[in-house]
Amino acid sequence: MIDIANYVENNRQEFLSHLFQFLKFPSVSSKSEHSKDVRNCAIWLLEHLKDIGAENAHLFETEGHPIVYADFIHSPNAPTALVYGHYDVQPVEPLELWNSNPFEPVVENHKIYARGASDDKAQLFIHLKAFESIFKTYNSFPINIKFLFEGEEEAGSSHLDQFVENYSELLKCDTVIISDTEWFDFGLPSICYSLRGISFVEIKVKGPGRDLHSGSYGGAVDNPAEVLANLIARLKDKYGRISIPGFYDKVLDLTQEERDEFAKLPFNENSYCKALGIKQTYGELGFSILERTWARPTLEINGMFSGYTGEGAKTIIPSEATAKISMRLVPNQNPKEIINLFEEYIRNISPPTVEIEVKALHGGNPVITPIDTIWMRKAKEALRNAFGTEPCFIREGGSIPICDTFQRVLKASPVLIGFGLPTDNVHSPNENFSLENFFGGIKAIAYYYMLLNENWLNKNKGAL
Amino acid sequence: MIDIANYVENNRQEFLSHLFQFLKFPSVSSKSEHSKDVRNCAIWLLEHLKDIGAENAHLFETEGHPIVYADFIHSPNAPTALVYGHYDVQPVEPLELWNSNPFEPVVENHKIYARGASDDKAQLFIHLKAFESIFKTYNSFPINIKFLFEGEEEAGSSHLDQFVENYSELLKCDTVIISDTEWFDFGLPSICYSLRGISFVEIKVKGPGRDLHSGSYGGAVDNPAEVLANLIARLKDKYGRISIPGFYDKVLDLTQEERDEFAKLPFNENSYCKALGIKQTYGELGFSILERTWARPTLEINGMFSGYTGEGAKTIIPSEATAKISMRLVPNQNPKEIINLFEEYIRNISPPTVEIEVKALHGGNPVITPIDTIWMRKAKEALRNAFGTEPCFIREGGSIPICDTFQRVLKASPVLIGFGLPTDNVHSPNENFSLENFFGGIKAIAYYYMLLNENWLNKNKGAL
Repeated sequence: MIDIANYVENNRQEFLSHLFQFLKFPSVSSKSEHSKDVRNCAIWLLEHLKDIGAENAHLFETEGHPIVYADFIHSPNAPTALVYGHYDVQPVEPLELWNSNPFEPVVENHKIYARGASDDKAQLFIHLKAFESIFKTYNSFPINIKFLFEGEEEAGSSHLDQFVENYSELLKCDTVIISDTEWFDFGLPSICYSLRGISFVEIKVKGPGRDLHSGSYGGAVDNPAEVLANLIARLKDKYGRISIPGFYDKVLDLTQEERDEFAKLPFNENSYCKALGIKQTYGELGFSILERTWARPTLEINGMFSGYTGEGAKTIIPSEATAKISMRLVPNQNPKEIINLFEEYIRNISPPTVEIEVKALHGGNPVITPIDTIWMRKAKEALRNAFGTEPCFIREGGSIPICDTFQRVLKASPVLIGFGLPTDNVHSPNENFSLENFFGGIKAIAYYYMLLNENWLNKNKGAL
Repeated sequence: MIDIANYVENNRQEFLSHLFQFLKFPSVSSKSEHSKDVRNCAIWLLEHLKDIGAENAHLFETEGHPIVYADFIHSPNAPTALVYGHYDVQPVEPLELWNSNPFEPVVENHKIYARGASDDKAQLFIHLKAFESIFKTYNSFPINIKFLFEGEEEAGSSHLDQFVENYSELLKCDTVIISDTEWFDFGLPSICYSLRGISFVEIKVKGPGRDLHSGSYGGAVDNPAEVLANLIARLKDKYGRISIPGFYDKVLDLTQEERDEFAKLPFNENSYCKALGIKQTYGELGFSILERTWARPTLEINGMFSGYTGEGAKTIIPSEATAKISMRLVPNQNPKEIINLFEEYIRNISPPTVEIEVKALHGGNPVITPIDTIWMRKAKEALRNAFGTEPCFIREGGSIPICDTFQRVLKASPVLIGFGLPTDNVHSPNENFSLENFFGGIKAIAYYYMLLNENWLNKNKGAL
């Protein structure tokens, strides 16, 4: 423990200087003008993996941005961990809201400011520097490790699923480690053990063949915008419960232990409302805010459009109306089944005056991993050792669809051991990452790797 | 009658050639690049009024397009009629759907094709040619006539109200004659005696201070799009009646005579649905289609917008949601009162999770004129004489706000004696006007002018 801590402390400036090189690439995956930058970033990452001692480093081409792979496999009796992360970043707009250039990293108030600082470059980099710290200190590595870094996470991970399917033998592992999540709060290390899934649909209500004059026809022709509003109004009851028959049938209920653990977390509803600019919270009766967002399915209107929305008045009965609707799913709901239930219900409650189209846009399975496994116990121990605080188990309301792919194809459950903070401004201007969590994260991950092989620890007494 | 009919028949080519000159001006009032064309059209119209013998011809400037005025006042004991019309036209887009140039009039299948042919250039021109026909045939004119033609009807008549207020003495009259409406059906001359009024509002539902990630917050934060849908869903009950308390209190009910007359009109619901591209009609229980659109108030969503409506998915809880809503009013509802009732109801049913803004955009009074007046009886007689068919009294669902101004300021009820047909494609590509209704209209209006002065008729035996 002292050796690793020393190595990290002695190399702070160098680690930071390497991270800054990595952060300087404007690897914005969703913008074609940055294709070259994304590729250059991948090549730099590949070279850096080689520099620190990783082997078999290879750039896998896809129809989109390349996938970076490297490994170090020299412990036949130790477990194999696949480390997943992404080197691409979100766009930076609106640029005028940044206090510094998003691709010229700076340190201020013990934070690194740059696009990708938290999501996910520094978090990915923690794994490289943890590897380096152990390898340089002991000239050996406790487990078998495979690094898999993609360049399209912020653009829908379009080619990763297929890659995992095609290279399942290469990627074979016992556990998947991902650092791309946040702590529940500052100073409270957190491990995420469940993510919600998603079903995404689009409804179109089609009325008259063209927009009609609302004076001439108002009162005699059903209005698609009104029909859509009525359909949406019937999707939830007055208790905030979703009215689609069968929707909750497969929901895995929270255990009393989980509810108790959530209740212990330092959640302040007033600060929550203030931060979001809302007057009060809202949701399904009988559940707390954390339960609602982490472990209960929900349905949201993401967009709605009909008729004339420009300046002033245009008195029409619109020809059609559309809505984009996403449902966040929890274990053990199935996205396809949920879309079918949704469509059936919508058709049942639609009036005969209009045509209804329901289009399924995409789906992703919810994820839950048991928390009483060796992987989870060791992760907790590693965090405790690194930060001196008892870590907590949390869930997340969002979706990381690749987790389901890893579970399904590689039969390996992900351990979501992230180091972000709620104040990191991910996807927003002035994205930042705490220096404390960067260096602490390197130690925690190094401890985690070591804790996964007791034989290695026995051979290297004093390492922990 | 024979004299006038002869004059019209002998001058068909010349009338048409004059009309074509008038139609060739692209007097699109809502587009600033056509300002010059609108003015040139006004000047041409002014000169033509002089040519046919009208006096005191004057172009009144406004902050928008000019108003054309002329009169002929030489019968101290006869009534004074104000003829209102508009020389501006709607935009022509989409141009590719026109079979001929909208500003190069052509005759095909006994119809004149051009933008403005029906709305309102040919209908306005009918009055000039009726005046000319009588004046050239008898060298006198039976009544006092004032022509008032505006160039901003298709752009909201922004300056006419003020003009009527300012020049109420100049415009003083016993009746206002407007030819800018349609017949109920081909071959069925119609006089419109009531128009609906309008109240136009915009609602904004404001939720979180910014769009939120629907994964992280879905289930805990109320969704403005959903709140808006719920509000809209509560505006009408399942019988199609508007749920706003007090909304129907001042509605002037249809008389049994009116309902009987409407029921006799040749209305075919199947053709109606087919023409509109709808599966079936819809509306307030207990009323026929014509009653619903002509004599019952209604409420329509004209536009609705929230969140992300582009291609694909963006999983957000939108920060806000808006809707544009218009209510068509019937006598004796008051637009301001209705907007107050609307806002009060919306505030009563809004949840405490959001902020609500209600903005009144504009209003217009409904109009009804008695049908048992001398003006109406003579109008019916004139139409019968010109077309050989018993005319019918109809209402219209739309609004012509200037009618209310004439009633209010000039104390003169409008006689809406129009010659359009439902197939004229007004405001659409291939606008047209029937030759039969053009020449028949000239005769009908000439007969109407003569019928309004019995003394003149006695002096000119055989005129009718």
